[in-house]
Amino acid sequence: MNLILLHPQDHWLSGSIVEIADHRAVHIREVLRAKSGDTLRVGLLGGKQGQAVIKSIDQRHVCLNVELGQAPPPRHRFDVVLSLPRPKMLRRIFRTVAEFGVSHLHLINSARVEKSYWQSPLLAPERIEEALLAGMERSRDTIAPVVQLHPRFRPFIEDELGEICAGRPCWITDLGAPQALADVPAGDAVVMVGPEGGFVPFEIDLVCSIIARRVHLGGRTLSVDTALTCVLAQGLTSVSTAPV
Amino acid sequence: MNLILLHPQDHWLSGSIVEIADHRAVHIREVLRAKSGDTLRVGLLGGKQGQAVIKSIDQRHVCLNVELGQAPPPRHRFDVVLSLPRPKMLRRIFRTVAEFGVSHLHLINSARVEKSYWQSPLLAPERIEEALLAGMERSRDTIAPVVQLHPRFRPFIEDELGEICAGRPCWITDLGAPQALADVPAGDAVVMVGPEGGFVPFEIDLVCSIIARRVHLGGRTLSVDTALTCVLAQGLTSVSTAPV
Repeated sequence: MNLILLHPQDHWLSGSIVEIADHRAVHIREVLRAKSGDTLRVGLLGGKQGQAVIKSIDQRHVCLNVELGQAPPPRHRFDVVLSLPRPKMLRRIFRTVAEFGVSHLHLINSARVEKSYWQSPLLAPERIEEALLAGMERSRDTIAPVVQLHPRFRPFIEDELGEICAGRPCWITDLGAPQALADVPAGDAVVMVGPEGGFVPFEIDLVCSIIARRVHLGGRTLSVDTALTCVLAQGLTSVSTAPV
Repeated sequence: MNLILLHPQDHWLSGSIVEIADHRAVHIREVLRAKSGDTLRVGLLGGKQGQAVIKSIDQRHVCLNVELGQAPPPRHRFDVVLSLPRPKMLRRIFRTVAEFGVSHLHLINSARVEKSYWQSPLLAPERIEEALLAGMERSRDTIAPVVQLHPRFRPFIEDELGEICAGRPCWITDLGAPQALADVPAGDAVVMVGPEGGFVPFEIDLVCSIIARRVHLGGRTLSVDTALTCVLAQGLTSVSTAPV
């Protein structure tokens, strides 16, 4: 936890004084071993970040005097459309998009997605939020990626994808593609990542007939979690990579 | 499993006929649902890859007629020096370096590595191999990364790192570095990735006084597993990325 995330619905005693008593209080006490008077890095969920001085701390509560003045770090230049992965991978995938500061993650159905995956309890909004927060706490971000579920492939591609792209190029990852994602022009884009085994040819053809262009991530078949991180890492190379 | 990996110590009935009866046989029967006469993609651990025709298959054994003619995919251009991560991450990290075809992974001690991590049963050679094989089966590789453990930081840096680099540049990831890994010259290199919380300043200074140059991976703090994949993904951008 490199940033203590405060929520607008926390117990605010004034505009700048907040009292917390949950896992964040435990973290401050037991991991950071902070004491009264110490300064912590904090952020307001959906808002700015800054410092907090511990006004008081006991076995249950931590009371913070908060000063927020800094903007959150910039967003990643890619939005992601990802075939719903095995539930086992979901938590890590939410954490990853949050770590990289992705604005939108669209989870879609596709031929190689098992129907049962859509029933996973890990897709409940509170479980998604919990995993996103873990990534944001890591990378010191206060802005959560917006996660949307699209359980029908064709309507998503035909009716929604164009609007989502809104003029940005759309790249679809496909092992045999003639062009590397690493070599496409810089700038904002939407990148589609398939399931284990990849998109089927019909899906690639449909998406490419409407909006997308095929790109590869090198010559190797990668797991979904590795492929997603690979896409986001390559998307860093053409933004301003100066440390913020 | 995109490649059935055969071992030289498997039960070879001749130079090209092999009988298997373990989890690979189960996979062929139950996941691939293959039957006699079907062709599978196979590789010989440490050697070439190719096709195998199923000669016979029953509830226990699968007998394969193997023809190996293709070279394994090219290696990644980076060797990796990684601070020993939390045991929970180890399996995924071994899988990742194998997926990307890294030649050498050096796990080292550093100030923020907990001593207890070195006792993890996941560092036993057979557990490491098992995790590497999972990555190689994914990315269709027959060559395993060589994993070496270096439980003492200073002797490793002072006595071994120079020889390991063997004239290649050495990059050490550090959040505030002036240069992005994505912007360094192409070519083979050794890349060092720190633990949760990063290398401490003393470590960075020591390594840089001897051989390394600092690079960053963007402006965000990343988890160790994300940072490692990020390094390897950025290392793809300047090799031949043509599909093989």
